[in-house]
Amino acid sequence: MKRIKCTVAYDGTLFNGYQRQPGQRTVQGEIEAALEKISKQPVTIHSSGRTDTGVHAYGQVFHFDSVVNMDGSRYVRALNSILPEDIYIIDSQEVHPEFHSRYHGKVKEYRYRLSLNEYNPMKRNYVYYHRFSLDVEKMREAMTYLLGTHNFTSFCGNLDDIDKVRTIYQADLIDEDGELTFIFVGNGFLRYMIRIMVGTLIQIGEGKKKPEDIKTIIEAKNRKLAGHTAKPQGLYLQRVDYPEEMLKPLTDYVDNEK
Amino acid sequence: MKRIKCTVAYDGTLFNGYQRQPGQRTVQGEIEAALEKISKQPVTIHSSGRTDTGVHAYGQVFHFDSVVNMDGSRYVRALNSILPEDIYIIDSQEVHPEFHSRYHGKVKEYRYRLSLNEYNPMKRNYVYYHRFSLDVEKMREAMTYLLGTHNFTSFCGNLDDIDKVRTIYQADLIDEDGELTFIFVGNGFLRYMIRIMVGTLIQIGEGKKKPEDIKTIIEAKNRKLAGHTAKPQGLYLQRVDYPEEMLKPLTDYVDNEK
Repeated sequence: MKRIKCTVAYDGTLFNGYQRQPGQRTVQGEIEAALEKISKQPVTIHSSGRTDTGVHAYGQVFHFDSVVNMDGSRYVRALNSILPEDIYIIDSQEVHPEFHSRYHGKVKEYRYRLSLNEYNPMKRNYVYYHRFSLDVEKMREAMTYLLGTHNFTSFCGNLDDIDKVRTIYQADLIDEDGELTFIFVGNGFLRYMIRIMVGTLIQIGEGKKKPEDIKTIIEAKNRKLAGHTAKPQGLYLQRVDYPEEMLKPLTDYVDNEK
Repeated sequence: MKRIKCTVAYDGTLFNGYQRQPGQRTVQGEIEAALEKISKQPVTIHSSGRTDTGVHAYGQVFHFDSVVNMDGSRYVRALNSILPEDIYIIDSQEVHPEFHSRYHGKVKEYRYRLSLNEYNPMKRNYVYYHRFSLDVEKMREAMTYLLGTHNFTSFCGNLDDIDKVRTIYQADLIDEDGELTFIFVGNGFLRYMIRIMVGTLIQIGEGKKKPEDIKTIIEAKNRKLAGHTAKPQGLYLQRVDYPEEMLKPLTDYVDNEK
């Protein structure tokens, strides 16, 4: 039995989210159905985390245990020949038998695309259109307060009693002629966290809040102080990084010891 | 009664083509339904031409006669507030009472987008993905043979006995790191003509035909000699140009004569 890691891109528009649900079209459901065809038995996949309805991915990661005697890299073509057009496997490889896409994901990058330009119907599912101008410099200043290790309760849509401390390593805002891209890199993100951060940054860009208000909002640990949850169609799971040692199949180690 | 000209962008993905058909979701049907809400009576629109299922537009043009006492430019907001998200009115204006979007359209521009890069599920409805490399220089050479006035029977999917002579003023191919854009400007295009030209150019790029074969194909007036009809999702109606004098409402002339 081999553990296989796959990197997958998907268009979230026509899915009821990522996670398998009976009777619903989900990303996990489609991938597991394709793997069942290849394996002639049910296969469960484990991903780096769920994405919500309408959210896209360029670099979601999942793993599963292969019962088929096939080189790990061959799952790219095998899966893509079965999967629907809105899911595309970018990469597949055999990894360490204890590799776990969720527990070993050290660093995650999300991007949020927002346009200040005239509405383009071709992009409506892939960019959030904001009608009014935003002060990009003020938003950039506000993003510096998000950097570092904080309790992000104020930026979390989940009321469960879980640890809400996360570390943000990078927070950038690219402005290409009114096409804005927010980039967030961290050790993990809470449910709706990116979208609430973006919703709050929009209020700062509109002048409804000040950049330094981010500090107060973080300290208050109160969801009500942050802005609204920005729409899902602008959000992309860009990449998940793993420790090098977990990306090597065990057989490689054995070979090296010979 | 005022004659109104509108420029409209639409994402063709979820429509059964442009032209109104009972029980089908079409671009014309949606726009006429929106105009009926504004006008409280049925309104018929006339467009520069139909586009087929899956084909997009950045600059389709239609006209209609307004029975509402409202400035022509106000139809942009009035229609966009009613229309679904995949149709967007870019411009509206009162024009000459004899303006006709189809008969006065002097010049039309179509674009076709083809990608040689790795598949991106987010772009699947907006670009045609070609799996194998193409010789761009050979395709550019072939496009020079399409320029000018020809009988395009070989590049027409319509068997009707209509005049098949058209003039192509411009035929360019832009290559941005494997993202190709074919640009065709002419005095009009036959049904499927752009897509058959692109299908034929693909065969030339693959080395299956030679650039100078275009001459023979045109002369043969035989659809069977040209290539396949390229998929609709890469095709965009980019713009339609009209004579200046037809774009002025009659009232302007009266004012000038005072």
